[in-house]
Amino acid sequence: MHHLHLLSSSFTIQNPRLCPNHSLSSLHSSSPLSFTSRTPLLLSTTRHFREKRSLQCRQSDYFQQQNFTRKQPPNDSSSGGALQPRVFVGHSIYKGKAALTVEPKAPEFMPLDSGAFKVSKEGFVLLQFAPAAGVRQYDWGRKQVFSLSVTEIGSLISLGARESCEFFHDPFKGRSDEGKVRKVLKVEPLPDGSGHFFNLSVQNKLLNMDENIYIPVTRAEFAVLISAFNFIVPYLLGWHAYANSIKPDDTSRVNNANPRSGDFEWSR
Amino acid sequence: MHHLHLLSSSFTIQNPRLCPNHSLSSLHSSSPLSFTSRTPLLLSTTRHFREKRSLQCRQSDYFQQQNFTRKQPPNDSSSGGALQPRVFVGHSIYKGKAALTVEPKAPEFMPLDSGAFKVSKEGFVLLQFAPAAGVRQYDWGRKQVFSLSVTEIGSLISLGARESCEFFHDPFKGRSDEGKVRKVLKVEPLPDGSGHFFNLSVQNKLLNMDENIYIPVTRAEFAVLISAFNFIVPYLLGWHAYANSIKPDDTSRVNNANPRSGDFEWSR
Amino acid sequence: MHHLHLLSSSFTIQNPRLCPNHSLSSLHSSSPLSFTSRTPLLLSTTRHFREKRSLQCRQSDYFQQQNFTRKQPPNDSSSGGALQPRVFVGHSIYKGKAALTVEPKAPEFMPLDSGAFKVSKEGFVLLQFAPAAGVRQYDWGRKQVFSLSVTEIGSLISLGARESCEFFHDPFKGRSDEGKVRKVLKVEPLPDGSGHFFNLSVQNKLLNMDENIYIPVTRAEFAVLISAFNFIVPYLLGWHAYANSIKPDDTSRVNNANPRSGDFEWSR
Amino acid sequence: MHHLHLLSSSFTIQNPRLCPNHSLSSLHSSSPLSFTSRTPLLLSTTRHFREKRSLQCRQSDYFQQQNFTRKQPPNDSSSGGALQPRVFVGHSIYKGKAALTVEPKAPEFMPLDSGAFKVSKEGFVLLQFAPAAGVRQYDWGRKQVFSLSVTEIGSLISLGARESCEFFHDPFKGRSDEGKVRKVLKVEPLPDGSGHFFNLSVQNKLLNMDENIYIPVTRAEFAVLISAFNFIVPYLLGWHAYANSIKPDDTSRVNNANPRSGDFEWSR
Repeated sequence: MHHLHLLSSSFTIQNPRLCPNHSLSSLHSSSPLSFTSRTPLLLSTTRHFREKRSLQCRQSDYFQQQNFTRKQPPNDSSSGGALQPRVFVGHSIYKGKAALTVEPKAPEFMPLDSGAFKVSKEGFVLLQFAPAAGVRQYDWGRKQVFSLSVTEIGSLISLGARESCEFFHDPFKGRSDEGKVRKVLKVEPLPDGSGHFFNLSVQNKLLNMDENIYIPVTRAEFAVLISAFNFIVPYLLGWHAYANSIKPDDTSRVNNANPRSGDFEWSR
Repeated sequence: MHHLHLLSSSFTIQNPRLCPNHSLSSLHSSSPLSFTSRTPLLLSTTRHFREKRSLQCRQSDYFQQQNFTRKQPPNDSSSGGALQPRVFVGHSIYKGKAALTVEPKAPEFMPLDSGAFKVSKEGFVLLQFAPAAGVRQYDWGRKQVFSLSVTEIGSLISLGARESCEFFHDPFKGRSDEGKVRKVLKVEPLPDGSGHFFNLSVQNKLLNMDENIYIPVTRAEFAVLISAFNFIVPYLLGWHAYANSIKPDDTSRVNNANPRSGDFEWSR
Repeated sequence: MHHLHLLSSSFTIQNPRLCPNHSLSSLHSSSPLSFTSRTPLLLSTTRHFREKRSLQCRQSDYFQQQNFTRKQPPNDSSSGGALQPRVFVGHSIYKGKAALTVEPKAPEFMPLDSGAFKVSKEGFVLLQFAPAAGVRQYDWGRKQVFSLSVTEIGSLISLGARESCEFFHDPFKGRSDEGKVRKVLKVEPLPDGSGHFFNLSVQNKLLNMDENIYIPVTRAEFAVLISAFNFIVPYLLGWHAYANSIKPDDTSRVNNANPRSGDFEWSR
Repeated sequence: MHHLHLLSSSFTIQNPRLCPNHSLSSLHSSSPLSFTSRTPLLLSTTRHFREKRSLQCRQSDYFQQQNFTRKQPPNDSSSGGALQPRVFVGHSIYKGKAALTVEPKAPEFMPLDSGAFKVSKEGFVLLQFAPAAGVRQYDWGRKQVFSLSVTEIGSLISLGARESCEFFHDPFKGRSDEGKVRKVLKVEPLPDGSGHFFNLSVQNKLLNMDENIYIPVTRAEFAVLISAFNFIVPYLLGWHAYANSIKPDDTSRVNNANPRSGDFEWSR
């Protein structure tokens, strides 16, 4: 997934050296589930990116090593057939000093007593920043993550070519450790207007860590992100599920059109 | 559904206090079905927002309490399988003085003698405005609603950053009570260009009510609305149902291509 | 389908008087199939819109009277189940002097020997203009049609607020009657920049007819058209059928990835 | 597929003369699989387009002659039913000196041990340029191809009306023949701002070939490409597969919401 656009713009980028699976350090799992696991190595992380003992090449092994608690359910048609297989997707931008991977994360639904569902939590887009650790190598064990809410995605979608935006997150907001971890994502125009810098700084007093990763994103790369974001926003809101339930021959909808009719604007 | 972006922009927004279900007043059902129910309390509503006896926290209970006349139909494949479960979706913007929830409402279809369907009524987007009733609490019992037609959605989609628009609705247009309820939705740029004000004023002579609710919508929030609106418009028009019926192997379509062929522009 | 936005912008538009089916003249079928049928009445059509003997109210009966040569096929899953019912959709703009209805028309597919399909003809959007024949009444028997090709749709999608475009069609191009019917669609900005005029003129020497119908389209209405056009273009190209065939677990696609691999840009 | 917009803009374009299948030269297969096949004729190709011995009319036969290694799999529902038939799509622009066909190419997926899938290679858009070989005839045997990566598509999507972009590809990058084939695609504004030139030059030292094909693309045609590209980008990234797997009643997703919950931004 991550190799295509690199190789296609082949004038500036070399072939990546792919690492076999066993080069992955178990101490530096790139699984997002283990981000706050406070492994000893992370404690010593500084902003100078010196530890490179355990490196990962790209993300080719990224999804492979995820611990799946989910079992692939048997194919039943109890909820209307057409069960989709689970798929892991992302989109990555590789640059000299860092890589950025963008991944959509689904909303969550809650069943209602009526048998219907409602959205209980909107989806988001997970940004993962990994510092470079050599030529075409990125240290995903030292990655930092930032979850873009739907509204923050709206900020990026509407960001002008010469405009900046900045988001602050505190993972412990409203908890006892509030204020101990501070994440700031800045998106700023490149001086020559050819794109934007994405700059993630994470100050973690719990781990005595102060990490700062930035990556330039060209206008073309930004356009791909915007296109993908515009596509995914309705899914993050769950609106696709409502939209897909609109069927001409849904007699249950047609039949109670009158009682439920919400158009109190022009009829009673 | 409504918590994510609040919590994620956690520097400025506190955790909401969630109300248990039983705090909902039966007199102030937030169901859209009861909007024009003229309960005694609504009669005394003024624009000063004094009644706060029965408050709802957010909309977490919003869909739960809807009276569903629709039964979940058994899963059959009579109309092509893949029956979607009913889903309630929305998207909310919470601010200090009010909250705004945006919900798509499906078009309605009518069967034709031929077995085909046509759209009998275009869908719309329901805006629901609720005044604040304390910190992170909104009084959905005093909400006011406004149904955006497809063309009004088009107005918002094409609204420039420094432009305004204004819609007038009379729910009793063409009826005996015409002119007794007047709704005006104004969308105006914020003075500093950072977004738009949504201002709904409802003058209801039947209830002797004069309500005015406004909420600032940032450019980022507006971009999310526009993205969601652009997604949903084809569904509101029913065009998705036509589009989804376009299948390569639909021999019935291919077979009568010549007789039905509508391209009288370049062939006879 | 055509009533919603009229009623919702209820300050300026009255309730339509709906005509019963039997008021439709059999001489003036609004079916697109009969457009070039040269009925006697059409022969006498002038640009002064005098004939109003047989009027249709809106298009509420439009689809009802279409002669369906297509039989609803039995529900089989031979091509993957999920057969969609046939649906007729459109979107209409009603103004004082004319109405405009916009309808997508599907592409056509052709089976290949391999069992695959290819697009044999791109879809289009059918514009139908009907002159007004009284208050809220339109004479669909005198409608004129214009089929927008995908590229012409592209013209409209990219049309600036102050720009014009013009399309010429000759339904008999390359045939013996070439030049005898000339259709010109002009889309021009309204003087105050508040939208565009759609102006269809049809000069038919075969019928000695010279018809000119124009309708102002506000910016909001144009935005809805653009949104619908942007949605439908990939379907008109048939790209949705390709896109929908992209499945993670399509082993046939995965298995012959190497032999068919078209990426001679970066690998052999 | 390729005839519609030509005939519809019938003032400037004549009816194409369709060639029967047997006029296709077996030496000049237009299959993309044989592009680098170094047939003798290709060796003698010059930039003056003199060889016209074997011409193809349009692409009407284009897909017909592809060698399909893929067998249409039997219809099973093992992966959720709704198997889509294979479809070949494209979109063509025909001009006096050349034709350009644009075709999406699917991403590739890889099964994981867990039963889930990941995107192993992003999709792309294949541009095919064929020089004209007479009136309404194009020599697809001499076509040149260029594969647009997702990021390059992003460049085109965000290209201003007066802006240029340029892409370089070396199909042998990182191999022994690196540098021997050089492809450059330039997209430059037309002098009058009415569109862009697409200019593909291929310098092939292995074949002693130096080919240069350019085609003007009007703003309307470009708008269609952009609309199609915006549609297809999420599919090329595989995000549609993720999006389609988001279902309200996917209990496996709901059930392990807590353990997998990726929102370490605002909760632990």
